[in-house]
Amino acid sequence: MDTNKLIQNAINSVSKQLHNYQTSTDPKLQKKASILSYWLDDYMRMLKKKETFNPRKLKRYKRGEIVKVHLGYNIGNEEGGLHYAIVLTKNDSKNSPIITIIPLSSVKANKPIHPYNVFLGDTIFQQLKGKWEIHHDLIDQELTSQTQEVDSLRELISSKTEAELLEDHADIDKRIHELNASIAYLSKLSSRRDKISNEILKMKTGSIALVNQITTISKIRIYNPLHSNDVLGNVKVSNEILDAIDDKIRELYIGK
Amino acid sequence: MDTNKLIQNAINSVSKQLHNYQTSTDPKLQKKASILSYWLDDYMRMLKKKETFNPRKLKRYKRGEIVKVHLGYNIGNEEGGLHYAIVLTKNDSKNSPIITIIPLSSVKANKPIHPYNVFLGDTIFQQLKGKWEIHHDLIDQELTSQTQEVDSLRELISSKTEAELLEDHADIDKRIHELNASIAYLSKLSSRRDKISNEILKMKTGSIALVNQITTISKIRIYNPLHSNDVLGNVKVSNEILDAIDDKIRELYIGK
Repeated sequence: MDTNKLIQNAINSVSKQLHNYQTSTDPKLQKKASILSYWLDDYMRMLKKKETFNPRKLKRYKRGEIVKVHLGYNIGNEEGGLHYAIVLTKNDSKNSPIITIIPLSSVKANKPIHPYNVFLGDTIFQQLKGKWEIHHDLIDQELTSQTQEVDSLRELISSKTEAELLEDHADIDKRIHELNASIAYLSKLSSRRDKISNEILKMKTGSIALVNQITTISKIRIYNPLHSNDVLGNVKVSNEILDAIDDKIRELYIGK
Repeated sequence: MDTNKLIQNAINSVSKQLHNYQTSTDPKLQKKASILSYWLDDYMRMLKKKETFNPRKLKRYKRGEIVKVHLGYNIGNEEGGLHYAIVLTKNDSKNSPIITIIPLSSVKANKPIHPYNVFLGDTIFQQLKGKWEIHHDLIDQELTSQTQEVDSLRELISSKTEAELLEDHADIDKRIHELNASIAYLSKLSSRRDKISNEILKMKTGSIALVNQITTISKIRIYNPLHSNDVLGNVKVSNEILDAIDDKIRELYIGK
């Protein structure tokens, strides 16, 4: 078959499947029309990104760290969608374009935890809350010192004659310059704090690691963290949880 | 955004990406137009199949068995396409819709084996060759006994009078019936032998297990074997290879 026909055939299949979902009488399938549409758009974007993608621009990921990844709209019961996941690769390199992870899911009320899963408790929630508090305190301190500096500058200016001010103007300029830097820093801190809040608000407390859904993904699928100071930077599970995951991997996959 | 717009947007993205590949000056990217088109068609078929898919109709897969799976057209450096793979799941159940595997790849000439890989030698090739030889011998035996039976029947019929033949006709009918069954059996054997030949002919000797590409897939992605008597049924790697894979998993993913 020539390429034009193949392309047309592919587009027809996609279109047919999306419309089948859309016109289904089952509301669950109807919803899939949007979810699959969103994913196809993301999928094409990720394929395009491959041409220019350089994993060296990302942080080096450590085992046990939490990442937010897009697993895609997957076949059958493969875990799909935007998920938190635990990095499993022990010796990630900045040169490596792929990474092995275990997807996380939230605990469903009244549903027992499957033996393939490891319960994480609310460790991610607590760590993000800790990060939020650090940012909150930093913002508080920065705001206090800013207010004091503004007051002090105002006092200084009003207490001086014009001639004195002209003489001191280099010193005053420097203090105003520092004040501007402090305002920029405050805005950065507060934007980071807001991102952390957003992440916390979207989060359900109580996570489980789906060890039986272990998978290897391109780093193009990682949404966060890309760098150490991103929202999920340095958020990780405890050594006890990693030990429990080790045991589960042995149980599910290792011969002896 | 309403669903119609989302769907149109998705179809536009897909169409744009396919045409970008098609009109690329890089022959490698040009080829991707066909590969991605084929995959989108398979992908939609697999999504549709999910509605009726029943893993209980498939065989129960054992650790170390070889399966042929479609990993899809994947993002970045994720392993993609139709691949042999080793089943890693220790306790597969016929109820389970997913399975964890390690994709295989063929050894590239003049390229050293990456430390993330385990060399398998030509074990799959040799096992399929063994299967082919068994089928070949069975066909040989069946053909010989068929020829003998045809000769014997012909002799019997020509040595008898019409009256005698009428008397013996129940016995002769039975032997002709058995001959027909044997012809059907021969045709089945020879079709199976041909499938095995086709598999062998497509195969490159010398495989490696890409342990750093471990992944969990829906059983919908399995092309072969679906049942024990399919071409790849009961083809598996040795315990020594499984031990080497165990070691590699420990090295790459297990804490201590």
